[in-house]
Amino acid sequence: MKAYLTRRYWFSASHRLHNDELSEEENRSIYGKCNNPHGHGHNYALEVTVSGHVNPSTGMVCDLTELDSVVEREIIGCYGHEHLNALPQFEGVVPTSENLALQIFDILKRKFHAAHLERVKLDETSQNSFQFAGGRELR
Amino acid sequence: MKAYLTRRYWFSASHRLHNDELSEEENRSIYGKCNNPHGHGHNYALEVTVSGHVNPSTGMVCDLTELDSVVEREIIGCYGHEHLNALPQFEGVVPTSENLALQIFDILKRKFHAAHLERVKLDETSQNSFQFAGGRELR
Amino acid sequence: MKAYLTRRYWFSASHRLHNDELSEEENRSIYGKCNNPHGHGHNYALEVTVSGHVNPSTGMVCDLTELDSVVEREIIGCYGHEHLNALPQFEGVVPTSENLALQIFDILKRKFHAAHLERVKLDETSQNSFQFAGGRELR
Amino acid sequence: MKAYLTRRYWFSASHRLHNDELSEEENRSIYGKCNNPHGHGHNYALEVTVSGHVNPSTGMVCDLTELDSVVEREIIGCYGHEHLNALPQFEGVVPTSENLALQIFDILKRKFHAAHLERVKLDETSQNSFQFAGGRELR
Amino acid sequence: MKAYLTRRYWFSASHRLHNDELSEEENRSIYGKCNNPHGHGHNYALEVTVSGHVNPSTGMVCDLTELDSVVEREIIGCYGHEHLNALPQFEGVVPTSENLALQIFDILKRKFHAAHLERVKLDETSQNSFQFAGGRELR
Amino acid sequence: MKAYLTRRYWFSASHRLHNDELSEEENRSIYGKCNNPHGHGHNYALEVTVSGHVNPSTGMVCDLTELDSVVEREIIGCYGHEHLNALPQFEGVVPTSENLALQIFDILKRKFHAAHLERVKLDETSQNSFQFAGGRELR
Repeated sequence: MKAYLTRRYWFSASHRLHNDELSEEENRSIYGKCNNPHGHGHNYALEVTVSGHVNPSTGMVCDLTELDSVVEREIIGCYGHEHLNALPQFEGVVPTSENLALQIFDILKRKFHAAHLERVKLDETSQNSFQFAGGRELR
Repeated sequence: MKAYLTRRYWFSASHRLHNDELSEEENRSIYGKCNNPHGHGHNYALEVTVSGHVNPSTGMVCDLTELDSVVEREIIGCYGHEHLNALPQFEGVVPTSENLALQIFDILKRKFHAAHLERVKLDETSQNSFQFAGGRELR
Repeated sequence: MKAYLTRRYWFSASHRLHNDELSEEENRSIYGKCNNPHGHGHNYALEVTVSGHVNPSTGMVCDLTELDSVVEREIIGCYGHEHLNALPQFEGVVPTSENLALQIFDILKRKFHAAHLERVKLDETSQNSFQFAGGRELR
Repeated sequence: MKAYLTRRYWFSASHRLHNDELSEEENRSIYGKCNNPHGHGHNYALEVTVSGHVNPSTGMVCDLTELDSVVEREIIGCYGHEHLNALPQFEGVVPTSENLALQIFDILKRKFHAAHLERVKLDETSQNSFQFAGGRELR
Repeated sequence: MKAYLTRRYWFSASHRLHNDELSEEENRSIYGKCNNPHGHGHNYALEVTVSGHVNPSTGMVCDLTELDSVVEREIIGCYGHEHLNALPQFEGVVPTSENLALQIFDILKRKFHAAHLERVKLDETSQNSFQFAGGRELR
Repeated sequence: MKAYLTRRYWFSASHRLHNDELSEEENRSIYGKCNNPHGHGHNYALEVTVSGHVNPSTGMVCDLTELDSVVEREIIGCYGHEHLNALPQFEGVVPTSENLALQIFDILKRKFHAAHLERVKLDETSQNSFQFAGGRELR
C-alpha cells in the first residue's frame, strides 16, 4: 500500500547566471540574456514528492502540515523574495535552477523525515522544469 | 514500441476526514479543518496511465472509449456528486485522497484489461496530488 | 491613471442544491445530480477586482495585505472547509454559486474600503464561472 | 462586426519595491518582503487586447505579426531579463506592476496603430493581475 | 441582482487560412504558415457568457443543461472534429477565428433564449483569444 | 548529481485517423469522429525530458539553446502548421499521437546528443497525453 504524495509551493526570486571564474565573453556565450548584469527573476513552482505506506488509522502517508512547516521555514523563508546571487548558499555556485533544485533536495533530505523524499521538481517558467532525485533514477 | 497513455477525468465530491475510533481531540489534531463536522469538497482531477505496445494496424495503445466507459461507469458514476463518507465503500475507511486513489486503482485493475494499468494520480486541489501504482515503484 | 487590480483566492466547500419549498421531483428536475442528498463539493477559485488611481508615492492602487486580511477573515474563514447548507447565511437560501458570489460581493462591499470594489468572480469548476458586479454592468 | 482580439506574451524580470523619498521604516511597512534590498523577480504574463472591425477580405481584425513585432521590440526587448529598478524608465518611479502596466499601455498606444488598443493586463503571479485601459472604464 | 455566468467548452477542428479571391502571393503574405495548403488545427476553447437576474426560487440565472444542449447540438456537433474550410458555412468565408467566433455568436443568439447572451470568447491557442459581443461594447 | 530537465514546446497540426488497409466500417468503428474525411486538428504540447550530470562550471545539464534549435528545425519546422497525413513520414502510417510521439522520440535520439534523451510526452488535448521512452520503462 505504498503511495506517492506530491505537494506544490510557489515563491518568487531573482538570479543572474554568471560564473566569476569565466571571462565576460564565456559568460555571455553560455548564459545569453540570463547573464544580464542586474539579473532577472521568476515565479518558481516547487513540487515535492514523498512516498510511504498509507497509515491504516489516519488514511494518510504523512502529516502535510509537517512538510509545509519545513518547506515554509527552510525553503520559502530562505529563497523567497531574494536575489539568489546575494545569498551565502550561492557563494561560488551559479544559481541555475539545477543548482537551486539540488540545494532544495538536500535541505529537505536533512530536515524532513516523516516520509521518504522521492523527488523535487522546480518549474522556472511554464517552459522549463528541473528535477532532482538525489542521484537515483527518477520515479 | 511500448508507449504510455494518460487520460484525465474530473469529478466533484465531498468528504469529512474523521476516524470514529479516535477521540474528538485526536481527530481535530490530525485532520484540522478537514475534520469540520459537515465536511467540505473538492473538484478531483483523475489521471489514469496505461501502457502497451502500439498496435501496428490502429496506431493506438488501446481503445480510449473502452477506458472512458469503465471510468464513467465504475468511478465517476460511483464517486461523482457524492459525499464519500456516506458511501458503503468508505464504511470504516477514512475518505482521504490516499484511500480514494487506492480504491480507484483497485477498481480499474479489476475492470480494465485493454492495456496495462500503470498508475492512478488524483489531484485533490491544485496544491495536492496522490499517486498509486499498486505497490510497485512509480513509473 | 485609474487601474484595475485582480487578486485570486482558493477555498474548498461542499453544498447540496435543494429548495425545501419545492417538491422532491421539482428539486431533482432542476438540480439533477447536484440535488444528491448528502451533497458534493468544489475547490472554489475567487477573483476579486478592485479599481482606483495609482498612488504616486507607493505606485499601488491599494495595500493588498488589507484586501487579504478581509478576505481571509470574512470569506475563507466563514465558507472554507464548510458545508454551505449548514451555515446560517444559507438558511432559506439555495447555496448555488450565484448566491455564494452575491453574498461574497455584499460582504466585501461592506468590509473593504481601500479601493472601489468592481467585481467578484467565482469559479465553481474549470467549466463554470459566476460573476457579480452589484447589479451594475460588468466591467 | 466589431471584434476583440487578445494576445498573450511572457517575459521574466526582477524588481525591488522601494521609494527613495520614503524612510526605511515606511518602505518596509508599505512593501514588506517586496522591499528586500536585492530584489526578487517574476514571470510576467502580458495580455494585450485590441479591437476593430473584421476585415471582410482577410477575416481578421489586424495583422498579428505587426502586434508581435511591436511587443517584441518595445516591451520584451526592453523589460525582459532586466532588473526594472536599473532601467532609465523607472528612475524616480517605483517599479510596481501597476506602473509597469501603465508604461506598457503608453508604449503600445504610441507605437501600435493597426487596431484600437483596449486594454493591457499584466499577471505578476498566478494570484495577482493588473489592468490598465488608459484611464477609461475597463472593457 | 443581475449576475453573469460563463461556461467553457472544448472542441478540435482544422482550418486553412486562404481567400480564393486573392493571389497566392497575397495569401502567403497575409496568412504566412497558416496558408499551408493542407491546413492545420487547434483545440478551440469556447467561453459563453450570459446574464440575467438570479431566480429567487432556484438561485440560478438559467438552466445550464439548456445551454449545454444548444452548444452541443449547434456548435460542437457542427464544428467539432471537422475541417472548417469543407463546411458549407465557410463557403466564401475565410475560417479565421474571428469569423468562427462571429458565427458561434449568431447561432447562440438565435437558438438560446433562457438568458441574455453577452459574449462569446474563443481561444485558438494559449496565446490567442477572440471575443465577439454582437457589435456592442464588450462586457 | 544527475538531474532531469524538461522543456515544453507547442505546435499546431491536423490529422485524420484512417488506415487505408481497413474497410470504411472498420475505420469508422475504430476511430469514430477522428475518422471524419477532412480531418481535424490540435494544439500539441511537447515535453522533452533529458538527463545528465550538472556541469560544475556552468551549473547546467546542457545548453538549452542546442535543444531548442534541434526541436525547432527537426520537429516544429516539420510537423507545425501541417496536415500530418500529407507528410511523407506518415505514408502508410496512421498519424495517431502514439505514432507522432514515436517519430519525435526517434528524431531527437538521432539529432540531439548534448544530454541523454529520457522521454517524450505529447499532449494532444488537455485530456490526452502520450509518452514514449524508447521502449524502456518510463522515468
